[in-house]
Amino acid sequence: MSLHDLMRQLQVRNNSKIVLLVADGLGGLPLTPGGQTELETACTPNLDTLATRGVLGLSIPVLPGITVGSGPGHLGLFGYDPLEFRIGRGVLEALGIDFNLGPDDVAIRGNFCTLDQQGVITDRRAGRIASEIGAKLCEKLSKIKVPGVECFVRPVKEYRLVVVFRGDGLEGNVEDTDPQATGVGPLDPAARDAASQKTADVAREFLKQAREVLKHDHPANFFTMRGIDKRPAIPTFEQVYGLRAAAIAVYPMYRGLARLVSMQVLDAGQTLADQCARLEQAWDDFDFFFLHYKYTDSTGEDGNFAAKVEKIEQLDAAIPQITALKPDVLIVTGDHCTPSKMRSHSWHPVPVLLSAEACRTDACTSFGEAECLKGGLGRFEAKYLMSQAMAHAGRLEKYGA
Amino acid sequence: MSLHDLMRQLQVRNNSKIVLLVADGLGGLPLTPGGQTELETACTPNLDTLATRGVLGLSIPVLPGITVGSGPGHLGLFGYDPLEFRIGRGVLEALGIDFNLGPDDVAIRGNFCTLDQQGVITDRRAGRIASEIGAKLCEKLSKIKVPGVECFVRPVKEYRLVVVFRGDGLEGNVEDTDPQATGVGPLDPAARDAASQKTADVAREFLKQAREVLKHDHPANFFTMRGIDKRPAIPTFEQVYGLRAAAIAVYPMYRGLARLVSMQVLDAGQTLADQCARLEQAWDDFDFFFLHYKYTDSTGEDGNFAAKVEKIEQLDAAIPQITALKPDVLIVTGDHCTPSKMRSHSWHPVPVLLSAEACRTDACTSFGEAECLKGGLGRFEAKYLMSQAMAHAGRLEKYGA
Repeated sequence: MSLHDLMRQLQVRNNSKIVLLVADGLGGLPLTPGGQTELETACTPNLDTLATRGVLGLSIPVLPGITVGSGPGHLGLFGYDPLEFRIGRGVLEALGIDFNLGPDDVAIRGNFCTLDQQGVITDRRAGRIASEIGAKLCEKLSKIKVPGVECFVRPVKEYRLVVVFRGDGLEGNVEDTDPQATGVGPLDPAARDAASQKTADVAREFLKQAREVLKHDHPANFFTMRGIDKRPAIPTFEQVYGLRAAAIAVYPMYRGLARLVSMQVLDAGQTLADQCARLEQAWDDFDFFFLHYKYTDSTGEDGNFAAKVEKIEQLDAAIPQITALKPDVLIVTGDHCTPSKMRSHSWHPVPVLLSAEACRTDACTSFGEAECLKGGLGRFEAKYLMSQAMAHAGRLEKYGA
Repeated sequence: MSLHDLMRQLQVRNNSKIVLLVADGLGGLPLTPGGQTELETACTPNLDTLATRGVLGLSIPVLPGITVGSGPGHLGLFGYDPLEFRIGRGVLEALGIDFNLGPDDVAIRGNFCTLDQQGVITDRRAGRIASEIGAKLCEKLSKIKVPGVECFVRPVKEYRLVVVFRGDGLEGNVEDTDPQATGVGPLDPAARDAASQKTADVAREFLKQAREVLKHDHPANFFTMRGIDKRPAIPTFEQVYGLRAAAIAVYPMYRGLARLVSMQVLDAGQTLADQCARLEQAWDDFDFFFLHYKYTDSTGEDGNFAAKVEKIEQLDAAIPQITALKPDVLIVTGDHCTPSKMRSHSWHPVPVLLSAEACRTDACTSFGEAECLKGGLGRFEAKYLMSQAMAHAGRLEKYGA
């Protein structure tokens, strides 16, 4: 019996409220061996109080040593095995621009490129055109009609765009048309299975018209297709857990990931204060709240230790607004580590704090990596976070008599 | 997606060097409760320095409570699930005498035995004949020809020998001929599937001739066959990790296990000093080095606590020669525990030390079982050691965007 089967079988409904506060890239590294990490350096009185009353642990996003991107990182936190539920690049790109991708849509990541007169690619990124130019080209491409399907074209940034085909009988198993090289022409969109033939045909027709539409533009006079895929067939959060779930995230990517598991995406405003206000407003309407805080990751990616410390302190300052609502379960964690020392995501285990009436408190008195190592939750794969949240919320019956 | 699929998909190449130093049977037990283990008793200033800067943990060779032999123990360390990749007894015996087993060879462990005039086994080990006698009998058996296959016969020790059949269309699914009892005749080599019929026929013909060849010898006038098998179909270390790997091991068994995953087996000399010299010599030619140190296991098997302590101290003394090469990742661990108190392999978790620039240092300051229990790597299945080595070497891209 799978974890999801267990959740479906054992879930019960009650009036409890669960808050999952994800500080993106939360975990870190000390700058020198024996030193303190960003989280340990930060002054976090509110998180430390929660740590004292709650229980700490470390989560492994997928498997030991594996660094994850935001997609698998969040699916894991939501209790969906990231090795089972995989998100194609086109889908992630569509989620990242807040495109409301349906279950039958095929999403494609596009790159504007430059073709010479012989149709050979001379620049795979069309000289990294400005975002405004990309947006205008997308408007032109939006006029293309392919019989039997709806086509959507959206700019992402610079030379990147998203194309979505919506219609019956579309499958996503189609090869990239980007040859990953200059000096050759774009490839034909080839179906890798019979069920995806219609998608390949639609893509071919779309590209044929696109070549006409863009032929007088320069330097971007065509585009290539990559990561062609549908969103994974994924059970909804409500099906798995019986939870009415809301997402309060500022950045589109995380709204998209929440939408993937059918959470309701609320207007989050622009700041953590906005998010907390929204949480308060929506408190009675949902059982589960996913709050996403981006800046612990972006400062880590920038390699700015001090700024990451500051962003953690700003997060800490928002904690009282959340605890004032008296959630039955409050979890603070990350989707992965982003040590500013590495300027990138990493594979290190991620700090987890769980606060709930029924938790078995450990001896930890502050929220940090070294304390988490001694925490009562131990070390576990992120996909087991939700079953623990459910348990602490009194929302799981016992298994077997 | 499996761990190996992940490794194949995420691996990148760089100039990093990884050293895996396996002290066979490293972990142990205190002689009295509350005492110190062999590793804790040993004076190991160099390992303690590494422990202080690095990160410790405990590995479980296969599953909790399962004691492993050298074969599964090493496969686990190499990142091959020992429950998935299984090594037949005949194959292990062939590896143990440095026989270069090909992918199509069938290896068989033989036991010389004594038959009476009715062909009934009276001694399953032929009175444990001396190794020299066994060797002479193997020479006689080496003259046997079976049409269509090459036959190799090699002595192991005392009454034990290895027979290898090489040829097309041989599969290894054939029953033992050893009846595991005296007072009955040897069994016929029976194929358990159609694909192994040829092997059974070859074995039958070989045994028929062997009975003639040995009929005037005494007490060993025949032999039985056990553990008939081919080496497992196993992806190479380079395929899985993209690493050019070298093995520097004194004992044939460990060279054989390294050869099984297609590491290049280097001449290791006889001593740890020889091995370190070889390591230095080969440094530029490989990405990964497996060094094997046998004496922590053999002293444990002897039940000699003091000798095991001494062998650990000798190992410690060699560490500076390894660290002088500045490996990007240095791992010191064992394939299993061999507590001298038990005089045998055991199931206890195995101490692991990992030293690398990007490791998240823990509070541990010496290398020992109790410290490892507090270590930042936590407790993990040995098959996840290599993914962590790859991560710390910067050789894995992130999973998903």
